[in-house]
Amino acid sequence: MNSFGHRFRFTTFGESHGKALGCIVDGVPAGIKIDEDFIQSEMDKRKPGKSKFETARKEGDKVEILSGVFEGVTTGTSIAMVIFNENQKSRDYDNVKDLFRPGHADFTYFHKYGIRDYRGGGRSSARETSARVAAGAIAKLLLKELNISVQSGIFSINGIECEDINFNDSCTSEIFSLDKNIEAKQKEAILLAKNSHNSVGGTALVKISNSPIGLGEPIYYKLDSLLADAMMSINAVKGVEIGDGSESTKSTGLENNDQIRKDGFRSNHSGGILGGISNGEDILVKVHFKPTPSIFLEQDTIEKDGSEVICALKGRHDPCVAPRGSIVAEAMAALVVADMLLLNMSTRLENVKKIYS
Amino acid sequence: MNSFGHRFRFTTFGESHGKALGCIVDGVPAGIKIDEDFIQSEMDKRKPGKSKFETARKEGDKVEILSGVFEGVTTGTSIAMVIFNENQKSRDYDNVKDLFRPGHADFTYFHKYGIRDYRGGGRSSARETSARVAAGAIAKLLLKELNISVQSGIFSINGIECEDINFNDSCTSEIFSLDKNIEAKQKEAILLAKNSHNSVGGTALVKISNSPIGLGEPIYYKLDSLLADAMMSINAVKGVEIGDGSESTKSTGLENNDQIRKDGFRSNHSGGILGGISNGEDILVKVHFKPTPSIFLEQDTIEKDGSEVICALKGRHDPCVAPRGSIVAEAMAALVVADMLLLNMSTRLENVKKIYS
Amino acid sequence: MNSFGHRFRFTTFGESHGKALGCIVDGVPAGIKIDEDFIQSEMDKRKPGKSKFETARKEGDKVEILSGVFEGVTTGTSIAMVIFNENQKSRDYDNVKDLFRPGHADFTYFHKYGIRDYRGGGRSSARETSARVAAGAIAKLLLKELNISVQSGIFSINGIECEDINFNDSCTSEIFSLDKNIEAKQKEAILLAKNSHNSVGGTALVKISNSPIGLGEPIYYKLDSLLADAMMSINAVKGVEIGDGSESTKSTGLENNDQIRKDGFRSNHSGGILGGISNGEDILVKVHFKPTPSIFLEQDTIEKDGSEVICALKGRHDPCVAPRGSIVAEAMAALVVADMLLLNMSTRLENVKKIYS
Amino acid sequence: MNSFGHRFRFTTFGESHGKALGCIVDGVPAGIKIDEDFIQSEMDKRKPGKSKFETARKEGDKVEILSGVFEGVTTGTSIAMVIFNENQKSRDYDNVKDLFRPGHADFTYFHKYGIRDYRGGGRSSARETSARVAAGAIAKLLLKELNISVQSGIFSINGIECEDINFNDSCTSEIFSLDKNIEAKQKEAILLAKNSHNSVGGTALVKISNSPIGLGEPIYYKLDSLLADAMMSINAVKGVEIGDGSESTKSTGLENNDQIRKDGFRSNHSGGILGGISNGEDILVKVHFKPTPSIFLEQDTIEKDGSEVICALKGRHDPCVAPRGSIVAEAMAALVVADMLLLNMSTRLENVKKIYS
Repeated sequence: MNSFGHRFRFTTFGESHGKALGCIVDGVPAGIKIDEDFIQSEMDKRKPGKSKFETARKEGDKVEILSGVFEGVTTGTSIAMVIFNENQKSRDYDNVKDLFRPGHADFTYFHKYGIRDYRGGGRSSARETSARVAAGAIAKLLLKELNISVQSGIFSINGIECEDINFNDSCTSEIFSLDKNIEAKQKEAILLAKNSHNSVGGTALVKISNSPIGLGEPIYYKLDSLLADAMMSINAVKGVEIGDGSESTKSTGLENNDQIRKDGFRSNHSGGILGGISNGEDILVKVHFKPTPSIFLEQDTIEKDGSEVICALKGRHDPCVAPRGSIVAEAMAALVVADMLLLNMSTRLENVKKIYS
Repeated sequence: MNSFGHRFRFTTFGESHGKALGCIVDGVPAGIKIDEDFIQSEMDKRKPGKSKFETARKEGDKVEILSGVFEGVTTGTSIAMVIFNENQKSRDYDNVKDLFRPGHADFTYFHKYGIRDYRGGGRSSARETSARVAAGAIAKLLLKELNISVQSGIFSINGIECEDINFNDSCTSEIFSLDKNIEAKQKEAILLAKNSHNSVGGTALVKISNSPIGLGEPIYYKLDSLLADAMMSINAVKGVEIGDGSESTKSTGLENNDQIRKDGFRSNHSGGILGGISNGEDILVKVHFKPTPSIFLEQDTIEKDGSEVICALKGRHDPCVAPRGSIVAEAMAALVVADMLLLNMSTRLENVKKIYS
Repeated sequence: MNSFGHRFRFTTFGESHGKALGCIVDGVPAGIKIDEDFIQSEMDKRKPGKSKFETARKEGDKVEILSGVFEGVTTGTSIAMVIFNENQKSRDYDNVKDLFRPGHADFTYFHKYGIRDYRGGGRSSARETSARVAAGAIAKLLLKELNISVQSGIFSINGIECEDINFNDSCTSEIFSLDKNIEAKQKEAILLAKNSHNSVGGTALVKISNSPIGLGEPIYYKLDSLLADAMMSINAVKGVEIGDGSESTKSTGLENNDQIRKDGFRSNHSGGILGGISNGEDILVKVHFKPTPSIFLEQDTIEKDGSEVICALKGRHDPCVAPRGSIVAEAMAALVVADMLLLNMSTRLENVKKIYS
Repeated sequence: MNSFGHRFRFTTFGESHGKALGCIVDGVPAGIKIDEDFIQSEMDKRKPGKSKFETARKEGDKVEILSGVFEGVTTGTSIAMVIFNENQKSRDYDNVKDLFRPGHADFTYFHKYGIRDYRGGGRSSARETSARVAAGAIAKLLLKELNISVQSGIFSINGIECEDINFNDSCTSEIFSLDKNIEAKQKEAILLAKNSHNSVGGTALVKISNSPIGLGEPIYYKLDSLLADAMMSINAVKGVEIGDGSESTKSTGLENNDQIRKDGFRSNHSGGILGGISNGEDILVKVHFKPTPSIFLEQDTIEKDGSEVICALKGRHDPCVAPRGSIVAEAMAALVVADMLLLNMSTRLENVKKIYS
């Protein structure tokens, strides 16, 4: 269950403080030029330690391709990528060895597996998402060939919402904010949390542009189902919305329906998906991240043996996971779309004939 | 892609106005007593035409079991169930034969498949969800054996939210409202929409109680990922939240973390899931339904050949899909939990040994 | 685990003496004309009671399509087909209710599931294969559109082998023999077994002609792996060979390699598959069926409670399952090829571009 | 499609002359002690260059575990293993860069993917099987905990068959022969082929002992189907038989049925599998390997551009792949059984209750 996707599929491995993390990407069509600099640049967006709004922990997150690429081009075989861990201070975790950090998966992993890999959460650490970004970069290279783009940014921090959404703004913002006029307030909220040894939550927005009509497989592999699955699998995510999402529960059919004219839809409340299938409009996904569970304030918890203790974590943690999380959400969206693209190819007999004659 | 689940898995078939709908449920453990009255009672909760708050269309939704049960007990083989369509007025749809109803999947199905099954949306109709409820009833019979319960109800209609959530209230409410003091206002909102030939949205809440700790498979088959996938695959759903969901983006780590004492968690902001794995608390899922796209007001749209027309739908439609949708959400939740239960069995060597020695 | 295939996928249900058997076929491209007479003619080839070389049990094996076809054409949604059981003499089995018939799955099903569905083997009966033939007919309709043909016949009965293989001969033979000069001897062997209340084994040969080059997915979804999987899943099959099969173990590299010239391969020892991928030559699969386990001679066995008994079966059974089995093998081959065709579509970037631009 | 298995699942990567090969093993229960020496000893059995009966090419085949093991014990998370390539003489292949080696996958890979990875066959090389042996070693460690053993050996070389099968003999034989009295003749056949610059085929036998009754999932995930799938996916395999296999086509029902007494089956013609499910007897699988396609004699072939050439390969190749192949077959058998063990756990309600109460 460490795999995601059906036809464009990846499998990840690795723990926060193990030797390495990585992935195998399967089902990649042959003939895609692999730009390793691009892959690394995607990694660099997610990697920690880039600014004061993030954890001070530094990881090079250097990706090495082990297979599936020959003379710079994909061969159609499985692509393995590995990221060796560099900055493993397992000692940071000696004081939490036997206790369950509140808000973390320590408690549930221990009860599920009977094992306590205390080194930074082990497999449950968000560090696993570096492998997703590597896989997502391969997906993006495929999407680029079809002129489909996937972008992301921060929509809100601690309830402070962007107003004029601009995906270009996010590229130049240290916190990937989608509105340069709101960015400062959002940063302030993060620093306030950081300085009070606490953390805050936030919301990312992902946009997929220029998607062909027809992506998404009914009934149980709908584009929105898969996006929801993908987003919810990211650490700290507690909610996913498509288009108007929960707001649409407050509107009427007349307001919410996107009426249609010759030249296209007159609105995009649906977020580009009708009946689980893309309609050609921008696909919009909101992803809600809870506050980082790792905080330095005192909290009640128990140890493996059940005894009650007070914990106050140490170490280096993101005061808000949403900004770096948005990059992961973007990667997951690219992976979902790549999968859907390949799946949709055999939908019509005429397409089958197009390939075989 | 008409299948859902991994180890407890079901596959559905059927169109709104075809001969029959149904499902095959696979992976059901042998030895479960099948109470056909219970299955039918689940179907009856979802079936249309029960009150003035629903479509006036009537369907018996009688389920017939074709296989997999012998002498009243599951045999471990695939269980097929069929629901023959009774009340198929395809003629209702003659006037929409060539046009794409706004907010519906007509446009996307046609562009994906090159086929226009105009009879009530064909496969994209919410009528497909009757097969899910049948499958969900089998899942519930398994869960009952382990004293796990799944309940649902309406949390809000058109923004009118319940305050004192009570899952018993929902059983006696025509709209499955979770708060008998708010129910009247919610009903009023539905009738207002109905009488103005419009529709409204709403939000359902699903609760899973007495779940064992440990359900959910990292990394890409997490309990919350699968619940999000399952819920988003239901017609008209545009958002899914776990526990505090989007509200958690407005809180801090200290507020949002569920601290732990000997006798359990001191709060349940997480909605019973940490790191994608159940922690033994109630699992809480919010499901947002957009307003029914079928309304009787005039709307702009186009026909198959691209020509612009005004459409005003006729026929019988739910003024709000959330109440009947909540029953589907409950069924899907039961199906996810059943799958997770079986998957989790082989997580530890000691469990493997328990079975084989 | 009642499903087979990845992109062109079917799921079956039903027991020998239950209400009905059937299948759901998923992933069928939209736009294929469904010739119901053709589907029924495929069913008729497999159905019992056609000659004295088969069981005298008669089944109409009438297939009814419940979904997925609109105005005679596939819609791209799941196709359900059902075959209601007509000739269920469960009483035939009263005398075997508690015992395990030697050579049958009675013993293993009982120990696996703790259930004894004694009615003709229940789910383990070869009657399940009728659903495969129905699904296979849909696959054949797809293959026909691409001029790919799948044929089968009997290669040997009780060691009596055909010499001049002719797939046209099999069409006119009551036992589907591939050599009209050998047919009489093969028939004799079957009647000898029948008259002595015993049974015999036999071997079927399946040929796929005009397959495109490139079908089969390395490494674990090879064309030959899937054919082996498919064939071995048929009741009574104990061996599968591709091309020269076991004979190739007795040859040398020089003899066994198919050398290549401009106009194609100079021989076809490989049976049309190299490295798990079709090479454009005829694909040849040998399928070995053990003798029917149901015989009327006395045999030692035990009952559910462990007590030893002598059993001598009654009822109506095939003296040799290979002829009717060859039709099932043909259907399974068609299903595998259909799946491979769809899977192979996304193998190259240029093919992806062909669909999306 | 580089994955195998359902619940105990592995995914492989890597080419013959790439940086590394390896695998991710998923679904491994937590709590298994990982003996790295044992894993390496399994690798050493398969690695080339151990005797004059094998290719002279040497590979250390050192496995490194990157994840999924903590303090010497499996954690339940995905286990990645990597084998770096050491002895890559890509230059050996410069002379075959543009031509399709007869009997190899060069022709089919090129036509499928449009890519010619000429370095020793790239992904289609049998070197990929080293990753399977690594994964198989993990499976064996699970099976050991349940006292299930998997063994293999050479049954025949070029038609020279063993008579007194003894799996202990195979351990001490350079060619893993199952009969020390026949071994010399089999070796002679290999050397004869080697010295005449040719190659020979052979047959391996795999035995699984002490398997519980009940492994194998009807209808399309039968134990024998999966074994056939697994074996046929190994390079150069052209046939698979279970128990008496093709011989059973020559016998009668009375001869072939395994009659049952209180103390067990009176024979084992079925090879331990009835109806696709293990019956508790030894499971026996025969695997037929064609002669190594790489030979040093002149053969006709064509180049990428279609021009005809004579090729005479150089380099280092096994004169017979069956002995090293038998080790791979053993690994694949262990992987299938491990998967079946985990899948079978949820077959009965009483087993589900055993885990959850």
